[in-house]
Amino acid sequence: MLEQAVDELSRLPGIGRRTALRLSLHLLREEKGSVEVLGNALIKMRNEITYCRVCYNISDHEVCSICSDYKRDRSIICVVEDIRDVMAIEKTTQYRGLYHVLGGIISPMDGVGPKDLTIEKLVERLKGEEIREVVFALAATIEGDTTNYYIFKQLQNFDLTITTIARGVSVGDELEYADEITLGRSIMTRVPYQNAVIK
Amino acid sequence: MLEQAVDELSRLPGIGRRTALRLSLHLLREEKGSVEVLGNALIKMRNEITYCRVCYNISDHEVCSICSDYKRDRSIICVVEDIRDVMAIEKTTQYRGLYHVLGGIISPMDGVGPKDLTIEKLVERLKGEEIREVVFALAATIEGDTTNYYIFKQLQNFDLTITTIARGVSVGDELEYADEITLGRSIMTRVPYQNAVIK
Repeated sequence: MLEQAVDELSRLPGIGRRTALRLSLHLLREEKGSVEVLGNALIKMRNEITYCRVCYNISDHEVCSICSDYKRDRSIICVVEDIRDVMAIEKTTQYRGLYHVLGGIISPMDGVGPKDLTIEKLVERLKGEEIREVVFALAATIEGDTTNYYIFKQLQNFDLTITTIARGVSVGDELEYADEITLGRSIMTRVPYQNAVIK
Repeated sequence: MLEQAVDELSRLPGIGRRTALRLSLHLLREEKGSVEVLGNALIKMRNEITYCRVCYNISDHEVCSICSDYKRDRSIICVVEDIRDVMAIEKTTQYRGLYHVLGGIISPMDGVGPKDLTIEKLVERLKGEEIREVVFALAATIEGDTTNYYIFKQLQNFDLTITTIARGVSVGDELEYADEITLGRSIMTRVPYQNAVIK
């Protein structure tokens, strides 16, 4: 029984067998009730959280609380890699538009191509909704630049402004590690996307 | 719901909120079935594993499989800090006696005193069973030496040999990190305990 718990924990990313054993022994010393709370929290999270069918943010409902909030600016969409970036940007309280979560970033090295992301869904979304601006908020890395450029190409025929958050975020850094002020500022001072950047 | 999973995971030792979020997002991408297996494995482990009432090793029954194995040498007890050490010694296949799991080590810095460990239970056990040898297999650290010495004092009036595993294990290293050959050899070449060691 210990063996099974260790097996399962060591399948998590970044958790080896030794860490899994250490965690299991820790849990064995905890109250039965609190281990139940942990186990059930994980199961419940997986069973009840779904993805918003509009923006692919996580959601308790079919459409997430951001997409169904009519007080937000519904003419602007911020494109992010994953939901951690939505959380980070929401925390700055500087942005009141909508999001589109790609679910990753184009990275041939990791075998992630455009088809693995929600880029097509973004294009469809732009056909249906009245959007005046798309903000790219991807990491300032080669993969981020590549993804920006790929999406930029797909959006060229739409009548909208394409911007990218200001690179106050250090080049090469992941978005989620930026402090709130820097990240908030970089989204306020967003600038027109120049594809020259990645040439 | 994500929040609760992150809260619960970040209560585990060595797991901060950022890691907890990363693990939660990983689980969200997994199959529902495999998250259920993980959650239930943790709950089941905690609910069904108990401690052997003889040696305090983990056990599915009241008395563990080692203590109830009459093919083992029942006249020798190896004293270890925790069940990871039992696992490590069992893996060497060099030891066929019984164990006594202290459940920790005397460490005033961490607020762990002799009363927090199963030392008294060991003394009681020696009164009831025919034991000819007690082997100390604690880490070669100041806390390990202190614990050895404390137990040695408690056992002085018993008619038995007290030995300690050979210090093939580097001084200052935790027992569980030793390779199997070194650890196996160190338990084979155990030597009489000289309390001079810690003077």
